[in-house]
Amino acid sequence: MRIVDLIEKKKHGKVLSKEEINFLINSLMDGSAHDYQISAWLMSVYFKGLTEEETAYLTEAMINSGEVVDLGELTDSTVDKHSTGGVGDKVTITLIPLLAAAGVPVAKLSGRGLGHTGGTIDKLESIPGFNTQLNIQELIEQVKKINVAIGAQTQNLTPADGKLYALRDVTATVDSMPLIASSVVSKKIASGAKNIILDVKYGSGAFMKTPEDAVELSKLMVNIGKILNKSITAVITSMEEPLGRAVGNALEIIESIEFLKGNIKTGDVADLTYSFASIALLQLGLFETQQEAKAHLKELVEKGKALEKFRELISAQGGNPDVIDNYDLFDLPAYKIECESKKNGFVHNIDAYKIAYACKILGAGRDRKTDPIDYSVGIYLNKKSGEGVNKGDILYTIYSNNPDKTKIAQKYCDEAFVIDDSKPTHNSMIYKIVKAEEDEDV
Amino acid sequence: MRIVDLIEKKKHGKVLSKEEINFLINSLMDGSAHDYQISAWLMSVYFKGLTEEETAYLTEAMINSGEVVDLGELTDSTVDKHSTGGVGDKVTITLIPLLAAAGVPVAKLSGRGLGHTGGTIDKLESIPGFNTQLNIQELIEQVKKINVAIGAQTQNLTPADGKLYALRDVTATVDSMPLIASSVVSKKIASGAKNIILDVKYGSGAFMKTPEDAVELSKLMVNIGKILNKSITAVITSMEEPLGRAVGNALEIIESIEFLKGNIKTGDVADLTYSFASIALLQLGLFETQQEAKAHLKELVEKGKALEKFRELISAQGGNPDVIDNYDLFDLPAYKIECESKKNGFVHNIDAYKIAYACKILGAGRDRKTDPIDYSVGIYLNKKSGEGVNKGDILYTIYSNNPDKTKIAQKYCDEAFVIDDSKPTHNSMIYKIVKAEEDEDV
Repeated sequence: MRIVDLIEKKKHGKVLSKEEINFLINSLMDGSAHDYQISAWLMSVYFKGLTEEETAYLTEAMINSGEVVDLGELTDSTVDKHSTGGVGDKVTITLIPLLAAAGVPVAKLSGRGLGHTGGTIDKLESIPGFNTQLNIQELIEQVKKINVAIGAQTQNLTPADGKLYALRDVTATVDSMPLIASSVVSKKIASGAKNIILDVKYGSGAFMKTPEDAVELSKLMVNIGKILNKSITAVITSMEEPLGRAVGNALEIIESIEFLKGNIKTGDVADLTYSFASIALLQLGLFETQQEAKAHLKELVEKGKALEKFRELISAQGGNPDVIDNYDLFDLPAYKIECESKKNGFVHNIDAYKIAYACKILGAGRDRKTDPIDYSVGIYLNKKSGEGVNKGDILYTIYSNNPDKTKIAQKYCDEAFVIDDSKPTHNSMIYKIVKAEEDEDV
Repeated sequence: MRIVDLIEKKKHGKVLSKEEINFLINSLMDGSAHDYQISAWLMSVYFKGLTEEETAYLTEAMINSGEVVDLGELTDSTVDKHSTGGVGDKVTITLIPLLAAAGVPVAKLSGRGLGHTGGTIDKLESIPGFNTQLNIQELIEQVKKINVAIGAQTQNLTPADGKLYALRDVTATVDSMPLIASSVVSKKIASGAKNIILDVKYGSGAFMKTPEDAVELSKLMVNIGKILNKSITAVITSMEEPLGRAVGNALEIIESIEFLKGNIKTGDVADLTYSFASIALLQLGLFETQQEAKAHLKELVEKGKALEKFRELISAQGGNPDVIDNYDLFDLPAYKIECESKKNGFVHNIDAYKIAYACKILGAGRDRKTDPIDYSVGIYLNKKSGEGVNKGDILYTIYSNNPDKTKIAQKYCDEAFVIDDSKPTHNSMIYKIVKAEEDEDV
């Protein structure tokens, strides 16, 4: 078998066999395929696509290129949730204790984030003492004890995906549905989960620009899951503005706690958390309808069960659970600057990427995995889309440790807000849910 | 400017500017573009093509990547002929003295061949003493004196094309019209010629499989020439069987001498030589019609003027001109094996690549530029397509220095011949001539 022949085949739109795709990924890993051959193959995939079977084989080959997390007896019952990335996305943090409170064992491995804020693991580490360095055995033991654990992913998962992505990034071959799908799904399956909920974002700030593209990607990922014997549900959500009001690390934990306390009953964070959680309960067969599941979940929040589970989680992982009752126990920033609206009207949009960029300037994120993160800084959106605002009202609040950075962040935040006279129409966050069709009995 | 953006642009079928194409080729040459980016770009060109202008800019950028031969005052009047490659193709050798005898100055630079036999330079070096190591000044001086000179191309012409071709070869991006066209034309223009005749082969053994593809490629090359202010004429010829009867180095020189002696009046070698030569005379404005030009050229052969010019050329370059009258002065092979037909019928086809492979086995060609060549070996086709043959007639003759190699060569030659009962129809060698349309006066 020769790589050049596999490029030639794909160039003509022919279907590659499982053996051929394995050969390609193995050759990528052992260095016998040259990067310039792989990139030519990727470009031919951009133009000619991959069938669902080919995409599943590629996904499997990438999974097999590295370590695979073995959650042992937990595997079948665990649920994993993945987001294709959103500014202010703290739904994993609200979801985990809620699901655990609902009786679903949650063994979550999460990566450290690169970008405007940290990832879920970084955000949790803003809780003083919170330890995310659990090995798989410790993770499993903690789940058995309190039904929930979250650790930093340290294994070398899907290295082939890492190599492919690095090449795609510099050869204009990122925007290919089968390549995106195999990348996302391979990482989730290698993380050990059997039941996977994917939050597929669309919108100007997201990778998928239109809901139609998001649906296409979702269907592909769900079908790959089916071929690889994993249950995947994709929830297609709009990403036009930051999720929730807080963007930062400690700020997002505080907003999550507020939700778990029952203080945030409506809005995007509540909507998404209840939706994902109810889908998980349905996926595991614990409820018949989403309505019933949601009612149960809301009750768990109202009765303080979800918050209690979060307290247990913090304690179990060495953190100080008193932060729940006293937010001053979080690392505090030197400055808190409340910025006023310069006009009357309604907020029509808040550009997610400008807010993200402002947070990055303030020090909430990192470029390299070894860079330090400032947990205390961030932006709080006092007004969100659809809300009325008068000149002089506080529009947003900057949490900062540096006056120069504050000024730059303020410039980006001011640009991010679109305020207009007319009242905007409100669109639902969730566009569609894509599930695997039930296998028919034969 | 970033390479990834140029890939993205071409991926979406957008047209690149001259500056962008120059940037791409300069980045290829200075190493700032990675091979994996160039190969992704090449694959996007395979799918989205290049406009004639883009192809001309690419051609120009490749010319400028290396040395350009300056033929000084000869430039405007010289004619260069290039073949896209054929088995037994000795038409350059027959053409050069004929054109020179017709008063056209011929300053020819030719590369050493890789493949089944040597290139034109190697073939000429089978003449004892023939020296092809002329520098440009020596070449020009000799042309001024006797109207003809041929030297081995030693300059570093179009190194960007060399780099691109090496990448294309291993990334399944060879078969792209604009990439083929720019590669061929850049080399010819860098060789110093202003008037270029291209022999574009089509057929099962050629790179262009159909005459339609050959016409498309030809039109593109002629139009690139127009944009770059060079006069290009493309002659589209079929390449179903070897050209002429001799395949080898000395054997092909002998067949060329036989043509120049007037002993080969018909058949493919005579047809092509007179056609190319008459096109050159027309291109230079020396004749009005091809018929007149051909009549004049045939007279030059019949009167021995072309042979005389070849004798002058050999003498001027240190070779022994007595080979013309005594073929035994060529290096002789140890064995000459006449192989008989095993059945009666007509020759329908002779697979050019099987004959080529047999010659390669015998030692007529090379894989690396430094490998030695055995000038004496080769195959002589005693029968060609359309000719009748009886069982026991000599079908072909093997010239060899090694009995084991002879056996393998014989196997390939036997396979190459297709003999059938019916008489095949004869097709003309020349399918079409593509010239630049005359510029209309405004």
